[in-house]
Amino acid sequence: MVIEWRPNRNSSLSLHQQIVDWMKQQITSGEWPVATKLPSQRSLADSFGVNRSTIITAIDELIADGLLETKVGSGTFVSNNTWNVLAASKQPDWRKYVRNGLHEPNIQTIQDINLHEADTAMIRLGTGELSPSLLPVKKIEQTLQSTAFDAYSLGYSEPKGDKRLRQSISDHLKEKGVNVSPGSLMIVSGGLQALQLIAVGLLPKGSLILHESPSYLNSVHPFQSAGMHLAGLSKQGRGTIPNQIKRINRKRKASLLYTVPTFNNPTNATWTKEERLDLLSICKKEQIPIIEDDVYSDLWLEKEPPPPLKSFDADGLVLHIGSMSKTLSPGLRIGWIAGPMPVIERLADIKMQMDYGSSALSQHLVATWLSQGLYSKHLDWLRRELLARRDFTLALLNQYFEGIAKWQTPQGGFYIWVELGKPIVNPTLFKLAIKEHLLINPGYIYEPNNHTHLRLSYSYASEDQLAYGIQTLSNIIRRLI
Amino acid sequence: MVIEWRPNRNSSLSLHQQIVDWMKQQITSGEWPVATKLPSQRSLADSFGVNRSTIITAIDELIADGLLETKVGSGTFVSNNTWNVLAASKQPDWRKYVRNGLHEPNIQTIQDINLHEADTAMIRLGTGELSPSLLPVKKIEQTLQSTAFDAYSLGYSEPKGDKRLRQSISDHLKEKGVNVSPGSLMIVSGGLQALQLIAVGLLPKGSLILHESPSYLNSVHPFQSAGMHLAGLSKQGRGTIPNQIKRINRKRKASLLYTVPTFNNPTNATWTKEERLDLLSICKKEQIPIIEDDVYSDLWLEKEPPPPLKSFDADGLVLHIGSMSKTLSPGLRIGWIAGPMPVIERLADIKMQMDYGSSALSQHLVATWLSQGLYSKHLDWLRRELLARRDFTLALLNQYFEGIAKWQTPQGGFYIWVELGKPIVNPTLFKLAIKEHLLINPGYIYEPNNHTHLRLSYSYASEDQLAYGIQTLSNIIRRLI
Repeated sequence: MVIEWRPNRNSSLSLHQQIVDWMKQQITSGEWPVATKLPSQRSLADSFGVNRSTIITAIDELIADGLLETKVGSGTFVSNNTWNVLAASKQPDWRKYVRNGLHEPNIQTIQDINLHEADTAMIRLGTGELSPSLLPVKKIEQTLQSTAFDAYSLGYSEPKGDKRLRQSISDHLKEKGVNVSPGSLMIVSGGLQALQLIAVGLLPKGSLILHESPSYLNSVHPFQSAGMHLAGLSKQGRGTIPNQIKRINRKRKASLLYTVPTFNNPTNATWTKEERLDLLSICKKEQIPIIEDDVYSDLWLEKEPPPPLKSFDADGLVLHIGSMSKTLSPGLRIGWIAGPMPVIERLADIKMQMDYGSSALSQHLVATWLSQGLYSKHLDWLRRELLARRDFTLALLNQYFEGIAKWQTPQGGFYIWVELGKPIVNPTLFKLAIKEHLLINPGYIYEPNNHTHLRLSYSYASEDQLAYGIQTLSNIIRRLI
Repeated sequence: MVIEWRPNRNSSLSLHQQIVDWMKQQITSGEWPVATKLPSQRSLADSFGVNRSTIITAIDELIADGLLETKVGSGTFVSNNTWNVLAASKQPDWRKYVRNGLHEPNIQTIQDINLHEADTAMIRLGTGELSPSLLPVKKIEQTLQSTAFDAYSLGYSEPKGDKRLRQSISDHLKEKGVNVSPGSLMIVSGGLQALQLIAVGLLPKGSLILHESPSYLNSVHPFQSAGMHLAGLSKQGRGTIPNQIKRINRKRKASLLYTVPTFNNPTNATWTKEERLDLLSICKKEQIPIIEDDVYSDLWLEKEPPPPLKSFDADGLVLHIGSMSKTLSPGLRIGWIAGPMPVIERLADIKMQMDYGSSALSQHLVATWLSQGLYSKHLDWLRRELLARRDFTLALLNQYFEGIAKWQTPQGGFYIWVELGKPIVNPTLFKLAIKEHLLINPGYIYEPNNHTHLRLSYSYASEDQLAYGIQTLSNIIRRLI
């Protein structure tokens, strides 16, 4: 539970009384239904900016009133007897609803990361996002200042999204060797929505999805929540990837293969051109369409990566996903899917039922950035900045992680996939880091049994934060080893 | 299939050759997979801006090449033998994927509406959207021109959405008598996404949802696609609504009740204060939480409607949905859900897995409009405009529909629910209207067996279009009766 209220220090009411009144109101209004668990006393004291003793007095009073109850060892809860206290109140059992929904919750560590990211005191060592200092805020403001809208563009968009934007994306993809017409492209609200649409739009329940392990797909659940099964492929695994695909597909027909072939999340591995051609060839033979998640490929540092799988695809085998979230700004929520037209039209029809299209303001801005060359100018600058950040971070790793970990030099993207010598990457390490105000992305988010890896990112934290954070993290780790 | 390409009249290649080359490329690249159905010759001629004879020549050539085939009575298709023709081509069977996905497709009439809305020659008599002339485009541009971003706001947003926006919405709701703190509010990308999140976040498969019939829920499928069942309640039905709820709930426990209590879509009915209190009381007794879809209530015309259900809710029984789509601009894709905090936090966690939050540009704009009073000024103006449109449209109905239909005078919102004397509202009428360039929303979209009603809207078409459209529609209908 996130508390955003604070007592008013200038009020004539005591802090303790204001807290009692506010909590009573949360309970009686149904905002805190029966059995809601309150944050810890320490955390409430922090949120309210008061002493812990004030919290204890307030809670004791509400317990005496019968509104709260304490269960030894597990915390303070909104009382089950509330209905005795509040005349005529009879609340629905929302707990049951929250528990019974179809969609998988995020795993606890990811929920914790999402929550703690709102805390500006945290040093975010694993965040897969550009630092605020790398977002072209002033340039975006300038574009908005010269923006003139066609009134039609502020209405509901057509199913595939703004035509001008689709044309710009089609032109942009041509530069990467990918030829798709605007009609075979649809706009989505970021890469994750693309996966969501594919999961509910193209597969019967129980379908098998192949993916590289470790995998971004273990950290989000678009396929799992729709009732699909995942099977991992591993470059470290038994046999080559093509052989693993053949072996699995013989036992049970796979419906799709998901891959991040360029600057992988989380490993930062990039498939060579030969590996790409091999993958296409085996998937064609085995009739397994490919989802190519290509949201990092614009972020190469010293030399361009091999062309996307889609550029070699003469058979309509590849659904190609791109996005502006990693390169321009995640807040825009603009991405796209390119693929065979009947597939795109099916997915666009579902998107119309899910959110009626993406933000017209965002679509307009991205179309302008692509068509006026602002995007490619921004990339030139961004690559230099990321390169400097990468080298800075590698120097820190050399200084503080030597002897306790191994890593590769990233050729692009955001991530360094750090392998520790000992299997100590577990929720305890995550929590110890939080105590030191460090937010890390542990390997087990991406591969359930992985307790040796961390996804570090050089894209988000400032140089000072990286310096302090990596040193502190190495101290924590050395204590555990 | 939507064709967005046109041959180049200045090219040295003949039109026919350009068309052959382009279609070949669509097929060989996999954009048109095997068995894709081509649009009719007439429609291709329209799209390409060429004579039908040019189309026929081009298609004949591709048939001779083995790339297309004609099935008598059902049209032209990409040939199954493509793989014989294109060396080494072996395409995945995308048709199977499109057919087998979990999510329900839109019903055909709605897919047709979505497609035809892109055609500016269409007169849209049923569109539930503000006319471009009613969108405050210039004022939105002005706001954007003075916009300064905090770089943090262009990053991924926190799970519940921008805090400043949630505070403004909380203040806005207070004016309607609804007291919810910003922490019990989450931002969504429009009201439809709110329903989507509730469907996959709070209900086990097979849950029963009660709703008023006719219902907006029959025209979209967030609950049905998640495997939920719907049961209709009707003011014209056996017994009062409370008695219908009791009767159904006795046979089978209902999980939620969905209602649009103010300026209903499609009927424009509004529940009285007494009906609202009765509904809350019965739902509380029967332990059925309520989804209050309140996206039209700001659009009252002469007097304010009764306060929202949520304003009478002391038990956390009501999930309240609001949106800027019907009042400010659908292209912004901004709405919200207010409800008990554990429910909101569950839904926010799922939203983070679906699209990582709504557009930061849109959130920023709406927060500014609400907090600076621009939104309420806009509403004052908008209400006067809609009132004039309503009266203009009613006068046309009096002139052209007298004797063949009945209707009520709308007190707000967009819709007139027109009841014809004869059950002629079927796909034939819909297609006859399309031929005359009229787009209508037939009753059967909202109630499968309803062949007597039309949802007309006075919010979208211009006065000229309304005058021509309503007269023409009455001619079509009189011919059918």
